[in-house]
Amino acid sequence: MSNNFMGCECPLETAEIVLFSAPFDSTTSFRPGTRFAGASIRQNSHGIESYSPYQEKDLFDLRVHDAGELELPFGNTERALRMIEEFVRADKIPFMLGGEHLVTLGAVRAMAKKFPDLHILHFDAHADLRDDYLGERLSHATVMRRIWEIVGDGRIFQCGIRSGDVSEFEFAASHTTMNKFNLHEMRKYVEILKGAPVYFSLDLDVLDPSIFSGTGTPEPGGCSFAELHEAVLLLQNLNIVGCDVVELSPHYDQSGVSSVVACKIIREMLCVL
Amino acid sequence: MSNNFMGCECPLETAEIVLFSAPFDSTTSFRPGTRFAGASIRQNSHGIESYSPYQEKDLFDLRVHDAGELELPFGNTERALRMIEEFVRADKIPFMLGGEHLVTLGAVRAMAKKFPDLHILHFDAHADLRDDYLGERLSHATVMRRIWEIVGDGRIFQCGIRSGDVSEFEFAASHTTMNKFNLHEMRKYVEILKGAPVYFSLDLDVLDPSIFSGTGTPEPGGCSFAELHEAVLLLQNLNIVGCDVVELSPHYDQSGVSSVVACKIIREMLCVL
Amino acid sequence: MSNNFMGCECPLETAEIVLFSAPFDSTTSFRPGTRFAGASIRQNSHGIESYSPYQEKDLFDLRVHDAGELELPFGNTERALRMIEEFVRADKIPFMLGGEHLVTLGAVRAMAKKFPDLHILHFDAHADLRDDYLGERLSHATVMRRIWEIVGDGRIFQCGIRSGDVSEFEFAASHTTMNKFNLHEMRKYVEILKGAPVYFSLDLDVLDPSIFSGTGTPEPGGCSFAELHEAVLLLQNLNIVGCDVVELSPHYDQSGVSSVVACKIIREMLCVL
Amino acid sequence: MSNNFMGCECPLETAEIVLFSAPFDSTTSFRPGTRFAGASIRQNSHGIESYSPYQEKDLFDLRVHDAGELELPFGNTERALRMIEEFVRADKIPFMLGGEHLVTLGAVRAMAKKFPDLHILHFDAHADLRDDYLGERLSHATVMRRIWEIVGDGRIFQCGIRSGDVSEFEFAASHTTMNKFNLHEMRKYVEILKGAPVYFSLDLDVLDPSIFSGTGTPEPGGCSFAELHEAVLLLQNLNIVGCDVVELSPHYDQSGVSSVVACKIIREMLCVL
Amino acid sequence: MSNNFMGCECPLETAEIVLFSAPFDSTTSFRPGTRFAGASIRQNSHGIESYSPYQEKDLFDLRVHDAGELELPFGNTERALRMIEEFVRADKIPFMLGGEHLVTLGAVRAMAKKFPDLHILHFDAHADLRDDYLGERLSHATVMRRIWEIVGDGRIFQCGIRSGDVSEFEFAASHTTMNKFNLHEMRKYVEILKGAPVYFSLDLDVLDPSIFSGTGTPEPGGCSFAELHEAVLLLQNLNIVGCDVVELSPHYDQSGVSSVVACKIIREMLCVL
Amino acid sequence: MSNNFMGCECPLETAEIVLFSAPFDSTTSFRPGTRFAGASIRQNSHGIESYSPYQEKDLFDLRVHDAGELELPFGNTERALRMIEEFVRADKIPFMLGGEHLVTLGAVRAMAKKFPDLHILHFDAHADLRDDYLGERLSHATVMRRIWEIVGDGRIFQCGIRSGDVSEFEFAASHTTMNKFNLHEMRKYVEILKGAPVYFSLDLDVLDPSIFSGTGTPEPGGCSFAELHEAVLLLQNLNIVGCDVVELSPHYDQSGVSSVVACKIIREMLCVL
Repeated sequence: MSNNFMGCECPLETAEIVLFSAPFDSTTSFRPGTRFAGASIRQNSHGIESYSPYQEKDLFDLRVHDAGELELPFGNTERALRMIEEFVRADKIPFMLGGEHLVTLGAVRAMAKKFPDLHILHFDAHADLRDDYLGERLSHATVMRRIWEIVGDGRIFQCGIRSGDVSEFEFAASHTTMNKFNLHEMRKYVEILKGAPVYFSLDLDVLDPSIFSGTGTPEPGGCSFAELHEAVLLLQNLNIVGCDVVELSPHYDQSGVSSVVACKIIREMLCVL
Repeated sequence: MSNNFMGCECPLETAEIVLFSAPFDSTTSFRPGTRFAGASIRQNSHGIESYSPYQEKDLFDLRVHDAGELELPFGNTERALRMIEEFVRADKIPFMLGGEHLVTLGAVRAMAKKFPDLHILHFDAHADLRDDYLGERLSHATVMRRIWEIVGDGRIFQCGIRSGDVSEFEFAASHTTMNKFNLHEMRKYVEILKGAPVYFSLDLDVLDPSIFSGTGTPEPGGCSFAELHEAVLLLQNLNIVGCDVVELSPHYDQSGVSSVVACKIIREMLCVL
Repeated sequence: MSNNFMGCECPLETAEIVLFSAPFDSTTSFRPGTRFAGASIRQNSHGIESYSPYQEKDLFDLRVHDAGELELPFGNTERALRMIEEFVRADKIPFMLGGEHLVTLGAVRAMAKKFPDLHILHFDAHADLRDDYLGERLSHATVMRRIWEIVGDGRIFQCGIRSGDVSEFEFAASHTTMNKFNLHEMRKYVEILKGAPVYFSLDLDVLDPSIFSGTGTPEPGGCSFAELHEAVLLLQNLNIVGCDVVELSPHYDQSGVSSVVACKIIREMLCVL
Repeated sequence: MSNNFMGCECPLETAEIVLFSAPFDSTTSFRPGTRFAGASIRQNSHGIESYSPYQEKDLFDLRVHDAGELELPFGNTERALRMIEEFVRADKIPFMLGGEHLVTLGAVRAMAKKFPDLHILHFDAHADLRDDYLGERLSHATVMRRIWEIVGDGRIFQCGIRSGDVSEFEFAASHTTMNKFNLHEMRKYVEILKGAPVYFSLDLDVLDPSIFSGTGTPEPGGCSFAELHEAVLLLQNLNIVGCDVVELSPHYDQSGVSSVVACKIIREMLCVL
Repeated sequence: MSNNFMGCECPLETAEIVLFSAPFDSTTSFRPGTRFAGASIRQNSHGIESYSPYQEKDLFDLRVHDAGELELPFGNTERALRMIEEFVRADKIPFMLGGEHLVTLGAVRAMAKKFPDLHILHFDAHADLRDDYLGERLSHATVMRRIWEIVGDGRIFQCGIRSGDVSEFEFAASHTTMNKFNLHEMRKYVEILKGAPVYFSLDLDVLDPSIFSGTGTPEPGGCSFAELHEAVLLLQNLNIVGCDVVELSPHYDQSGVSSVVACKIIREMLCVL
Repeated sequence: MSNNFMGCECPLETAEIVLFSAPFDSTTSFRPGTRFAGASIRQNSHGIESYSPYQEKDLFDLRVHDAGELELPFGNTERALRMIEEFVRADKIPFMLGGEHLVTLGAVRAMAKKFPDLHILHFDAHADLRDDYLGERLSHATVMRRIWEIVGDGRIFQCGIRSGDVSEFEFAASHTTMNKFNLHEMRKYVEILKGAPVYFSLDLDVLDPSIFSGTGTPEPGGCSFAELHEAVLLLQNLNIVGCDVVELSPHYDQSGVSSVVACKIIREMLCVL
């Protein structure tokens, strides 16, 4: 059995998409463990099919290279982000598996240099817009704030947000476009973002914990798998130049279902890109 | 990190609401363990925010005192109920965390003395209307029957009931108002109960086990978190004089999601009161 | 406490339905363990009521005999199937608890001899229509293909299918009737199947893993318990001559919820038959 | 597969030993769950052999009847003890599976009536000699004190005790014979007890938690399985008129090893009697 | 991070030892899951060091090739054994990771052709000498009997055996050399076996379940890690031509300790060979 | 129930010992989670007695203040160490609960300023003497090397070490005193260290994983609880000026036994000091 994500067997040279994982969770404040997500996703990917009956496509027909796991240092946040930034400078579409959400900052730093007009599409339960968290400016809870400092006003589109402190919701009112509580504005967002280079960041805790328990800070009241799936299918209308799937924490997923949920949504994203 | 429920830092003297837990599960017939609910709820409360974006309120702005855990005896049911009854006689709104559902009887005994016109709003998967259970009259399965003996006909309003023996459903037909299978009658109930003193008892197993697995007797076919949340927001139209949240059993909640569900619904209830 | 499924206390002689379990999982390719389903179902059945408030019937009023577990050999697939086939030749309605899905082949072999006009109603996440799996023709992934070789074109009606390789969906297009992704066609199927002898095979992974995590190959995007329950109630319009409930794997069900889901749907099926 | 303890298939009439379980845990102060011990022991007994290569005996050659589980009430301690007392009045050697340690009191009440000269051999990590516990006189922590009130000074022989408050060790100094920390005095005890009617009560937490984690109050520093086994083999020199094995709590035994440990020591005890 | 067993990075051509896993568990009678052992061992090997301070050797200095997992069919026992037999015909020392114990038969069939004088050194809790098990001749419980049919009397040396039915112990008395209950005869065995080609089969359940809970049929009363380690170091005096490590079942190893135990003993065995 | 460690109720002013926890695990390379140790230890401490029958002392008679948990930042290693260093400057004996082993560096920095002649007594499975780990100099795997840079040659006494790379064992040969594999040299160490100010650092993974599975990098072949206990009792002959207990990781301790082991050894250490 290959150790790659199922069906991602294309050599690097001819690949269009490069899948890799960034096993970093040092700033996780509540319950760490997302560093194990990449291993769990690759292992469980062999429990689903490579063929999507929804899109009638097969991963084996796509050109995806699985580059495995980055070897990131533990406890040195800035250095880990630099290693991610350097890795994603390649000519291919990066598809990053977290790790905690802060890894997105490394990828966006690289992509924003390449695409000055970069827009961010952000699915999450949490706003991630704090200016600092317990005095730290680099944290899973500040990642969208740091990204806003790079891309600026009007470039960040957030969906499914249902948790944050009052300052984050006030910040969002002036600086980002936020669809609170659900994904209903997604069709409107697609109209607005059409044509622009878009980086799509999927924090899996946007899902309701009934279907996705395997995460450090579950937040009840999220969307169903079907709703997320429907929103992901809309991505075919956008120019996605990079993406990530973050915050799976296998320790809180005794049954393995959360890993399989991640695998299936990754398969559908790969087929859409 | 405080050991209180997150944000409940008001001193007793100035508090309006007194949160406390009643770690009792001696009559549990199938799978015990609800005694651990209070500890798990307080610990997991620090994984959610004190701010409710739904109600735009923050627990730190409310006056809630967390009195911690009662030290109840094990194996002496009547004495445990008396201790609960004595504790809730205070002038504040009691907010009790179970424990098993029988603890509600202790609280209602106290409240019914204070409010002769007391009504009961009861969310649950189970009718809890047996006259005895394996020969015992004091049991989680008989608690609403014992409460009916105190408050009488027409005072008990039940929602979400989808399990019981035939005698319980027959008893309900004559003596309580029962919304079987879902919470659809809640708006009607609110109309009827408006103005009356209401004790709200929330057995968390009214939720579907997909979102709330952490309970001794899960019963498939329950409501979603969104449906329960919507019903809880309706409480703002009622005169809630006391309430409880019971039957979380952390042993059956490996991922911690059920504890977080309890925390979030408790936060929303505190903001509504 | 009896070791039977709760309320199934009818002696064999006077029974109409014979419940038994087939603890076989030797061909399971991903994660074995369904052999423990029968024990877990019987034990957890005592955590639900024998009375169905949906159908207003009680299992104690029905004539169901619980015959316990077959003693099947491990590692000898053909012999295990023969033992199942021999067991279900009796005059009663067989109600088999898996075990993996391949056990259905044993039961259908027996039933097809008795009912030459046998039709199959198949709820599942997976098509199970491969011709072989890793070179083996007898496998949980080939069971419906083997059954098709017995009953032929137009006799198999599939619901909820959302996983398979491209060859399986092509095969289905020519040889079976397939309702992809959901159970919406069930009412139409009931019209078509009315009067014919129907064997109903319920692979519990047709449910979404949010409510049914306890299975070897969970597949997100399935139906809710309420949707499955509604479909099961429609069975009262059909001539069900045998049925099974398969693929519960208690190892992946730490909370016990999946076992309780199985128990409740079995109770409802028994009341419908 | 039989639901009896493996190999205990003798009918009641001809049996010499009657095995039964007392699923009671209502006074458990720390972590309940011993009520599930009987079911777990019977199920796991089929994972070991009925033959003891140590004693070269087979359970199928003995005359042991498995009477299953008593149906005890929850939350009514005194009534549960009376039911146990009534059950063990039979003419056979009672072999009780707990449940928590308080169940021993029920059995000893019956045995002391039959054998006025009854001695108690007590293996445990805890002294269980408190006069009351949180105000309750009937508790797992007081059971040997209550038994002392029945049998009196000099009749209780304790082994392996390594936990208690200072008052318990003081009480023991005057009223019982106590082998602290290990089982080294067992040979001496056998000399003293030879000929007298002895009730043997085995609290499995006398074992070190490395080999027996599945109990509510594990206490590091206990004996190994080999040491316990060796002590049990010495029982063949005594006149054992009744015995019990208590405090297995399957919830804390994810691997199942503790249940198997219980099964093997029960098999060895049955072969010795 | 490599997916190989830590430090086993030698190419096949220059390797002296070929590590591979045989993920087969179809005949497992009690609790399946050993098929996952290879993946768990490789993953956990990165949690220990490649350097052995006991032997002052490092795996990176040895010539071990990790060939990964065989793709064995499920449910077809004879074909799986043939695939193992064919794989081990190579010129290198085979080091097989089970899987259940029956896989040893495949390896021994190949080795016995190459070494007509093959001797078997067998560490196990169970005798595995049944002639058939539930009617099947190919079973984890019969594997040493089948091997005896190949190698004959006086060639099988068993250590640590503490479970079996009476017929197995009788068979051993005439046909094998058996060290019951412990490993004390190991030094004597080494004297006898010196010079002969020896296949070493290590069923990890020879260890006490206190240190090795992760197995399908744990048997209390086994040896400690230190005792097993000491015995393994004695292998340096023998001519080991092949070996295996079987019966790790990661499902019953929630803490991961059993996998780490397997990793450390494998490292020590590799350093000894 | 108090949230303090059981029996540690002395106010800060009059205390001799200050217990506190340092919930830091950001450099953990394999499996994080030690940040939860403090909470688990305090909770489980109420499952053991405050009285030590070994030393005939009771924690309630000692003067220990429990200062709770430090609020350390995540992902900023240097700042976390400074916070620990500042906290332990008080006039009392610090008793720190980790967290990962790196927290010891913060405490030793403070203690070495106060006691220029500070010696280190270090119990561990791992040497922790690497110069860097994946390029980071501040890591759980380098902590004793950093401490050596402060205290110098001949001041570090290590016991139980059985894992490291070859460079660590070479470094130890020249710069520290190392008792490999066991605690046998402890009596000799006590002779040498008598009178000197000693900081005692106990990495609980020095214990064998059979009794202590709840840690990130378990290493088989360690000492028993009884051996560790005996060594701890020898501390009464030393001048212990500070100590810590690190590397409990509750996630890998499903049964709770590891937390209880930590509690009991902490109780014994407190009684010895």
